This record gives sequence, structure tokens and C-alpha cells, in this order.
Amino acid sequence: MFGNQIAGKISCEGKRIFYSFNPSLNQQNTSAFPIATNEEVEHALAISKNSFYSFSSSKPSDRSKLLELIAEELALNKSIIAKAYCKESGLLLSRFEIEFKRTYEQLFLFSNFLKTPNFELLSETLGDQKNTLPHLVKKHVSIGPIVVFGASNFPLAYSTIGGDTVSALAAGCPVIVKAHPFHPETSFLVGEAINNAISKTNFSRGIFSQLFDNQYSVAHKLVLDNRIKGVGFTGSYIGGKALFDLANSRTIPIPVFAEMGSVNPVFVFPNSLQEKSEEWSSLFSKSITNDAGQFCTKPGLFFIPRSENGKRFVSMLSEKLIQEPSFTMLHPSIHFNFEKKKQEILDQSKGELIEKKESTVILEGRQGLFVTSASEFLEIESLEKEVFGPFAVICYYETINQLKECTEKISGQLTATILATQEELIENQSFLFLINHLAGRIIFNNVPTGVRVCKSMHHGGPFPATTDSRYTAVGSDSILRFMRPIVYQDNY
Amino acid sequence: MFGNQIAGKISCEGKRIFYSFNPSLNQQNTSAFPIATNEEVEHALAISKNSFYSFSSSKPSDRSKLLELIAEELALNKSIIAKAYCKESGLLLSRFEIEFKRTYEQLFLFSNFLKTPNFELLSETLGDQKNTLPHLVKKHVSIGPIVVFGASNFPLAYSTIGGDTVSALAAGCPVIVKAHPFHPETSFLVGEAINNAISKTNFSRGIFSQLFDNQYSVAHKLVLDNRIKGVGFTGSYIGGKALFDLANSRTIPIPVFAEMGSVNPVFVFPNSLQEKSEEWSSLFSKSITNDAGQFCTKPGLFFIPRSENGKRFVSMLSEKLIQEPSFTMLHPSIHFNFEKKKQEILDQSKGELIEKKESTVILEGRQGLFVTSASEFLEIESLEKEVFGPFAVICYYETINQLKECTEKISGQLTATILATQEELIENQSFLFLINHLAGRIIFNNVPTGVRVCKSMHHGGPFPATTDSRYTAVGSDSILRFMRPIVYQDNY
Repeated sequence: MFGNQIAGKISCEGKRIFYSFNPSLNQQNTSAFPIATNEEVEHALAISKNSFYSFSSSKPSDRSKLLELIAEELALNKSIIAKAYCKESGLLLSRFEIEFKRTYEQLFLFSNFLKTPNFELLSETLGDQKNTLPHLVKKHVSIGPIVVFGASNFPLAYSTIGGDTVSALAAGCPVIVKAHPFHPETSFLVGEAINNAISKTNFSRGIFSQLFDNQYSVAHKLVLDNRIKGVGFTGSYIGGKALFDLANSRTIPIPVFAEMGSVNPVFVFPNSLQEKSEEWSSLFSKSITNDAGQFCTKPGLFFIPRSENGKRFVSMLSEKLIQEPSFTMLHPSIHFNFEKKKQEILDQSKGELIEKKESTVILEGRQGLFVTSASEFLEIESLEKEVFGPFAVICYYETINQLKECTEKISGQLTATILATQEELIENQSFLFLINHLAGRIIFNNVPTGVRVCKSMHHGGPFPATTDSRYTAVGSDSILRFMRPIVYQDNY
Repeated sequence: MFGNQIAGKISCEGKRIFYSFNPSLNQQNTSAFPIATNEEVEHALAISKNSFYSFSSSKPSDRSKLLELIAEELALNKSIIAKAYCKESGLLLSRFEIEFKRTYEQLFLFSNFLKTPNFELLSETLGDQKNTLPHLVKKHVSIGPIVVFGASNFPLAYSTIGGDTVSALAAGCPVIVKAHPFHPETSFLVGEAINNAISKTNFSRGIFSQLFDNQYSVAHKLVLDNRIKGVGFTGSYIGGKALFDLANSRTIPIPVFAEMGSVNPVFVFPNSLQEKSEEWSSLFSKSITNDAGQFCTKPGLFFIPRSENGKRFVSMLSEKLIQEPSFTMLHPSIHFNFEKKKQEILDQSKGELIEKKESTVILEGRQGLFVTSASEFLEIESLEKEVFGPFAVICYYETINQLKECTEKISGQLTATILATQEELIENQSFLFLINHLAGRIIFNNVPTGVRVCKSMHHGGPFPATTDSRYTAVGSDSILRFMRPIVYQDNY
């Protein structure tokens, strides 16, 4: 029996239901999910607030233990989660294995982070002996109940027990998840694992709830409620910006950490292509097409010198790209938007589309490249827009000055990649200064996909890549999103 | 000749002028200040943006040197700055000395902070030997040109070279100051000191400009301009919230760090009054009245047990408060609002006003206390509002539960003060948990005024005390407002 999960109890008060979709079979799944009623939303909020003070004051070591128990429960339920995951996402079991491992290990990353001695301490400034200057101890304190929105493209690693939920729980913030309607069953099963883990601790059951809705009403109620103190979101610009505006319209505005995607530009310097074209065309053809390119770090925009080497690289890349396997996309709506956004580019720009011709799988993300020029890029706005799927725009540039002009036009990005020789990097310092202000992560001579989950990752970038470039959505520093400093003067 | 200061040049293009006011003499000053024209605003913005890339990439040690040069220039011009300061603020020379020292030393705090080895490095995670995991170096990068709004109550420490400007320059961000119209001459003289210092370095003159306006038009243009990447503000809720909304209405929203004042509640526990009433009544009578109570950390709300000890403490506090010296307020408008807000409380609440009877100085902030009950506090909203000036509301509470109820009603604060014995602190853990979520700084058995400027200070608190509780406006960590993390993958 599926239902909303409120503080450890399953609740099915509402009459409105929805179903998820199996993209691989191109048909609706059979499990019905009840949309949370106003009363259920209110109940989740009340119980979340009530659990906050004690959870916020809990020992980091106890929260650390909770995360390990969740990992254990996930492992116990791995096979049934896998079944729901593939059924609801169209992603292959091999991808499930990778994402499950990442989700599992992420729990231990945070669990270990919470074991850091004096985890909560930020700094201390001693008083003077005459007692005229106070003694100050600066610590972290958790901000309050958090709403997490599951992401369509990561049913595990960015959803019910994804980076947002894990970092909020690690911070001592109760979480209400609004499950993504593409994978409610996966979310529900993961929610049950979380509930089982909580039941083995002394924490209040109210620290976790999960609500279902395939529209926006539950999201609105949650984000506008005064008891909610922060929001984690991964998805489209439209969705993230709407939540940001909603949160800022409150009497008491709250931070929204929305990761809204990126085209992840790749800047290729001339000399770098002499030796590396073979290696890079292989790496990037996979980076663009893997899992139908449905990653926020998929490279979607290339600047390549208009030269023999440049053209050779593009031709190698096209050839390999077409030969890569194709994948079913996450949902008919994602597939529809993929085709629509490609068409918009074709309608507005004069470049050439190189595309895999025939579909071999259902709802296939048919990979392609669109080859045009930097001067056209400077004129046509849609060339800078993310096309979510296995697709990239190639712009041939004439001079480094033109490359700089393009760079200045590009809006905030999660990542920027530079392919260049050491000499070219040294020669182009002023270009590197520019790039510093474009993205949250700069990759040298490699692909942007495959985000490493660790302390030094920064997955975030200037607006519109995210709503708050100062915080990361990946890695242990993401806990900082859900804490703020507090100073104790002359005590503690 | 006074005028707008744009990249080291004085500019007086406009025909509209304004004058500042001498509160001590209750008359207008004679120096005219030209309001910046649209072209002057545009010029300052263009030159600020042009200077950004090189300033952002400058060595921290060079920026450190700049701050020391500014301190030197301030010291050279101290006596003429003092004259303008007193003439424009009504504050005494003794207060000037304190604020000048704080401003001067603050420059060295940041200058030394910039000398920290690897100042820009946040963390590093090594790759593995097989080269399957990338090497990540996380650093700080400056966010771009910043607009700083001078504050009425700190003509030096929170104005042209106050905490916001110093931390932005330290971060490598060019600054445009919108001078506060109460003290344009002080601002101009400080601006000249900054310009002299910059001219002794290799930095572009464009890293500092200062514009004048006694209305809101220049502020609007600056905050809405795409080249501006952040805002620092200290002042009223209305002013700060307007800037926050303006910044969020942009196509690319930017962070606004607005410190919007506070009532700084003081929670007094019963046993603590047995021994300490004498000492505390002296400390708090000064903390409320010093410089006419025109501080954002002035204690403006007390919760005192309804007991013999409690009543005795209030009577001692009232008596000493009345005997404290009175001061001229900063401006007729500040004086008007002070009297008006007191009257609002009198009109809405049934408590008793204890007030100094006769005025002895011009535009005097006549000190007073308003004595009422916690139950009235729970009902009447205006009792929680800040009255900017030497005034506080005293609420007698009956039980610790009632005290908790009041605490839960209070909105976000810069500080909260607890007067209690060690035993009372241990007994009232659940109250302390509550307090953790109320304020940015918790003071134990002392006054909240006299903010220490150092690494571990946190001057910031939950909305509406500030628009971003995660950042401090005082101390070296305030530099974090104007930087964001960036990761270099497999290079640097």
C-alpha cells in the first residue's frame, strides 16, 4: 500500500491519485499514488516543526549513526528499489548500480564528516585578562525544517535520500520531501528505508516525511509555510526560479538552493588539438551521450578553433558520437522537450545538424551535434540554452578575442572546461581571469560529467546555474546550506 | 569643492544639490552636494566593471597594502574628518575618537587577514594514483562590483570606509559607495583618503567611486544594474527590505546583505538578580542611553521575573537611566521617529512610561523605559518593534513557560542576552535551545552593545534582523559576503 509518509506513518486521506510511467515500455505503471491533502501537508509541517528543537540540539555522533542506519536499510532493500527505479526511469540496471553506490557512499561521507572533532565549531577568539574584551565562540546552528524536491534525473542520488536530504539531516534539520512524480514508487521505498532507520534511533519520527503530488499545489503550500526554513531543489530553470520567487515573497524570506542546469561550455585551444584529438573525441562522445545526456554537467556547448585540427576534431567527435549507444529518455515529456529545443535551434540558426538517423530504442534520446560559428553564437540567444539530452552545439571561433567575446556573453554555469596545453594556459591568463567568473568548477583537459562526491567538490555556479553560487549541492560542504553561524559570548 | 567621486576624479555634472544638517545647532550646514546624474552613475558603473577582472586577480598582499595605505591617509586627515563628523552627526568628539579607532583598526584586521598564507584556499582533495579520481582545489573568488550604502549612525565604521567597503575591497571587489545624505562631507573626506591611497598603488582608480543623492534614484539605478553583483546596507527594515526586493527582481538576482536593526531582547532569570542587580542596572542604563541609544545592538526589550528582586532591579535601572547624560540625536527625522514610535507604544499598550522629564540638549533623545507585562507583550505587536533611541520595553513575566511563549513570538534578532546563574543555565536547557534559533549572537551576563571586531564575531541574525543570517557584517569573516567558492579540477 503506497501513500504519503508522515512521521513514520502511511497516510492516504486524499481521493486524487496519479501513476508513474514506464519509459522503456512506453506505458503507465500500475501503482497508484495519493496526492497529499491540505490536512496531510499541515500535519507533516506541524510534526516537522515540533521535532526541530530536539533534533537541532542532538549530538552530531547520533546523527552520524542515523545516516549509517539509513545506508544499511537501503542495502537491505536494494533489489526491490532497483526494480522500481528501472521501471520508473527507463534507466538501465548498470546505471542503477552506479547511482546506488554513490547514494550509499554519500551517506558515509556525511556520517564521517559528523565525526570530525568539534564538528560544529567555526572559530574562537579569546577574551583578554582584564575582562574588557569578550570571549567569543562561533559555532554552526541548524536553520529549521527543510523542503527537498526530488529530481527527475537522479531517482536516488538527488531525490528522497539524495544530497539535499542527507545534508539537511546531517545539519540537524527535519526534512519534508516532495517526491518527484516520475518515480514515486522508488521514492516511497527509499522513504520506508529512512523510516525504518529512524525507528531504530531515539530521534522523533517527525524528522522525516514524504508527500506526493504530480502538480504544484503541495509544493506551494510547503514553500510558503512559515515553519519551513529552507528549500533544496534540482531541476529546470522555470521550476527553480518559481520556488525562489515564492520563497522571497514570504513575510520571512528563506534561502532556496536550486540547481537549475547548465550548458557547461568547453573551450578548446588550438595547440591542444594536435596530440589529443583522438583521446578527447572519445571522452566527449561518451560524456555527451551517456544515459542519454541527462546530466546537469553534460557538455552542451563547444568553442573550437576554425582550423584543420579543429575540423578534424569535430569530425572525429561526430563520428564517435553517432556510434555511441542510445538510451531511452526519462519520460515522454523529457523526450518531447529534447526534440522541441533542438528544433528551436534549427529554426533560428543557420548551422548544420549532425544526428543519428534511426531510433533503436523507445523514447530514444537520438544523439546529435549542431555545428555553427562563434559569430552566430554572439547573435542567437537560443544557442546558449540548455538542451537536456545527448546534444551539443559546436561553435567555430576565429580568434582568441572572439572567444573572449563569446565567454563574456555566456551566463552563469555549473562548470566550464578548458582543453589547452600548459603553454596556452600560461599565454591566456586574461581568458582564465574571465572564466573564473563564469562557473563554479573549472575542468582542465577532461570532461565535466562524473562529479566527484567529496569535501572539495563545488557543484554550484553563478545564476542562472543555481540560485546561490556560494553553496554546493554535492559533497560534504553542502551541509553549510542548512546551517548558519551563531556566536556565544562569554559562555560555552 | 565637493562632488561625486568617480575613479579618482571629482564630478559635478548635475544641477540638483542638497545640504546636510547640524543637529547640535539645529540648523542646515552650508556645503552643497551635487546629486549624481544618470551619466555619472553610468560612468561609475562602467569604470567599476572595467576594473573588476584585474582587481579580482590581484595578489591578496597588494590588497593588504592598499588597506594599510587607506588607514595612513585617514590618520593624516583625522582632524578635518573629525570636524565634519561632529558637524554632520551631532555626535561628540569622544565618540568620534572611538569610532575612528575602530575604523582604523578594522583596516588592519583585514590587512592582516589578507596576509594569511594561502588566504584564498578553502580545501584540497587529492586525486588517486590511477588518475580515475580528479584532483580538486577549492578556492575563493570575488563576486564583482559591490554597492555599499553608508549608515546614518556610523559615519565612519559603517559608511564610506566601513565594514562593507573594507571587506569588499579585501575580497577584490570594486566598490561604489552611495554616501548617506546625513554626512556627505564626512563621506567625501574619507573618499578622498581612499583615492589618495589608491593613487599610491598600481590598482585601477576605478575600484572606488562614491555618489551622492538625498533620495532613492541613484540607489535604484545602482542596485538594478547588471554590472553590480552584491549590496551592503545598514539601516532601517524598510530601506533594507526595499533593496532586497529590488535585487531579487533583477533578471540575475544578487545577494543583498542588509542589517536592518533589532530590539536585542534581554532575558533575566530570577536567581541571577539576587547578587547582580546593582552591577547590571549600571551596565544596562549605560548600554541603553550611550550616544542616545542609536546602536543596532542597543537592548530594547527586557523580560524580568515578576518578583521582589525583579521589581527592585527595574527600579534601580529606571533611576540610573534617568541620571545618565542625554545626547543630541543624529537628525531631526530620527528624533521625530523616536518620539513617534514611543507614542505608538503608549497608545496601544497599558503599561507605564518612566521617562526623563526635561530636555537639556537640542534634539535630545530623552531616555525612558516602558514597563508592562509579558501577557501584554503576547498580545500587542508594537512592543516587539525597534524604537531607535534611548528606550526599552520591560515585560514582567510570571513563569518560565510564559517566558518561552514570548521567546517563540519574537522575530529574528542580531543579539539575545541572558542574565542567569550557572545553575539556571543548566536547568533551562530547553530555553537555551529556543534561543539558539532567535539570534546571531548570544551574550551571557553582559550587555550586547560594544561589538568586538574580530575573526569570531558574528553580527547578523535571522530575518528581519538581516536579509542573510549566514553572513556577518562585522569582523574578518564579513569578507565571505563578497566571495564564492570555485573548484579547479586537475590544475592549479
